Amino acid sequence: MTKIKNDLFLRALKGESVSRPPVWMMRQAGRYLPEFIAIREKYDFFTRCQTPELASEITVQPIRRYGMDAAILFSDILVVPQAMNIPFEMKAGVGPFLPDPIRSQKDVDQTIVPDITEGLGYVMEAIKMTKEMLNHEIPLIGFAGSPWTVFCYCVQGQGSKSFDKAKEFCFTQPLAAHQLLQKITDTTIAYLKEKVKAGVDAVQIFDSWGGMLSPADYQEFSWQYINQIIDALYEEAPVIAFGKGCWFALEKMANSNVSALGVDWTVSPQMARSLTHNKVTLQGNFDPARLLSPPNEIKKMVTQMINEFGKDKYIANLGHGILPNIPLDNAKAFIDAVKEYKA
Amino acid sequence: MTKIKNDLFLRALKGESVSRPPVWMMRQAGRYLPEFIAIREKYDFFTRCQTPELASEITVQPIRRYGMDAAILFSDILVVPQAMNIPFEMKAGVGPFLPDPIRSQKDVDQTIVPDITEGLGYVMEAIKMTKEMLNHEIPLIGFAGSPWTVFCYCVQGQGSKSFDKAKEFCFTQPLAAHQLLQKITDTTIAYLKEKVKAGVDAVQIFDSWGGMLSPADYQEFSWQYINQIIDALYEEAPVIAFGKGCWFALEKMANSNVSALGVDWTVSPQMARSLTHNKVTLQGNFDPARLLSPPNEIKKMVTQMINEFGKDKYIANLGHGILPNIPLDNAKAFIDAVKEYKA
Repeated sequence: MTKIKNDLFLRALKGESVSRPPVWMMRQAGRYLPEFIAIREKYDFFTRCQTPELASEITVQPIRRYGMDAAILFSDILVVPQAMNIPFEMKAGVGPFLPDPIRSQKDVDQTIVPDITEGLGYVMEAIKMTKEMLNHEIPLIGFAGSPWTVFCYCVQGQGSKSFDKAKEFCFTQPLAAHQLLQKITDTTIAYLKEKVKAGVDAVQIFDSWGGMLSPADYQEFSWQYINQIIDALYEEAPVIAFGKGCWFALEKMANSNVSALGVDWTVSPQMARSLTHNKVTLQGNFDPARLLSPPNEIKKMVTQMINEFGKDKYIANLGHGILPNIPLDNAKAFIDAVKEYKA
Repeated sequence: MTKIKNDLFLRALKGESVSRPPVWMMRQAGRYLPEFIAIREKYDFFTRCQTPELASEITVQPIRRYGMDAAILFSDILVVPQAMNIPFEMKAGVGPFLPDPIRSQKDVDQTIVPDITEGLGYVMEAIKMTKEMLNHEIPLIGFAGSPWTVFCYCVQGQGSKSFDKAKEFCFTQPLAAHQLLQKITDTTIAYLKEKVKAGVDAVQIFDSWGGMLSPADYQEFSWQYINQIIDALYEEAPVIAFGKGCWFALEKMANSNVSALGVDWTVSPQMARSLTHNKVTLQGNFDPARLLSPPNEIKKMVTQMINEFGKDKYIANLGHGILPNIPLDNAKAFIDAVKEYKA
């Protein structure tokens, strides 16, 4: 394996001391970039995900413009249920939409744990192409949704403020719910292992909806499955787990084989360090809406954030995905402030 | 003033020792009750709020059915901006909707701090009628939205997952944002003082969207205004502040003149007690979706919740409003479990 030239990100994941923290942004390959919008105008969502030439081009677009310290493969968490015979579509004004959501044991029985190389081979092609384009300059991250978050969409059938149908399924049909969660977990493990084989240098698990659950329910319906994925993967690649709104579980999450934990902006750096007992690298946590502040204010706030987290065992990032209406100069101010950081 | 027969709720607010905790449910006068749906089919939303006979009838409906230890006046947080010349309407499929949201200094200048007795006299009438119907059996709670939460609707113009337009206004036009927040605060103080004069025994401030802010931004854009309301009111009536997702601010909130703090279900009772240093009464925090579990399970979980909070300085409640699809027997199981509690 050829060594990656800028290995700040991989060293931060190992907990090694670095001259400055690495930086990337969740959803950095996305809707705030004019070059992304140009591609979106020509190709629909699933075409962009499923065409390796497009996915790899979108992945490297922000790197060309801003020079982040890591790229993340453009894809979607719903490619996993799609490969499981759960046919999501993109509905205008709604987003991901499943005409017949999973609401019974019979529905769960009809889902499959697929052969990844068959159903998701296009992702592996995109990884290989992206790695060539990156030319060993920076590492590439592969990602998947957490089983709970994927489950939320499969049962609710679309986005939701409370995912009450998903929770209802867990609380009234727990056996069927756990079977579906396990099938998603098994598929995700096989999927991420293939991604590592195809060349990604680290993987991130996004638990966007874990914060809907109480601490006890989070352990039962989300964390135990994320933890299975971490245990299956960590010897092959570093794993980052990001649970939005899951501050209450950070202490238990830090007692795992995870390399880093993502945190959102409602957790102060001090609180995040204290809850994780400084055991793991932390990633985050700039409020995406704060990128609407003037660039000079952004730079000050970023410097303060790094000072509070500390430069080591830390990956600078947002606390959730970048918003579509962020001016290009503001995103640049965020990245530059990290790259200009002096301890 | 005639003494209220069942004063469990008021005694818990004072921190006195009680035989069992009092219980009520946020949104208890609402969409899960067939007798409420019957009224909703005849009268639209604002008619229900603005007609004292309807508001008081809706307020006592859940008390007749379940015998909670407190009633909460049926109303809406948007009656305050409506009285400020901010004309919300109810839009089918959208909810509260403001055709011309507040987005500039000029928009802020056009809002008014109204004469409460003129603009919101109907609320005071509803309070007097409800007090008569309750006949000194249990206390009556009056409520208002927090200035930040009301501001979110005024600037966003409708509900939102991220209230990014409201945050953008704060981060790009902070002076105008603070002026609007102060006007909402002044109106809310006058409004709640009138409510106390009209007869409510306690007031609750709902900060539904405080959890969208970072800890520093929460202090700047939400808590300082809630705190003004508490300081203006606490000598006249006990004040409860409920910030959904605001676990990170609990420690500072407990250092105020508030009588009780509401907590949502993502905060364990132990964590809530620890963050508030056992200084104030706590209210909450059953996951509203957990009312979909079978009644016998609900009862077990409620007992465990009380054991974890402790029976004193505690008001049993949900961690957010009751969902429309909760079976009547499940709501009953929740209330009964608290009333049957033995220390």
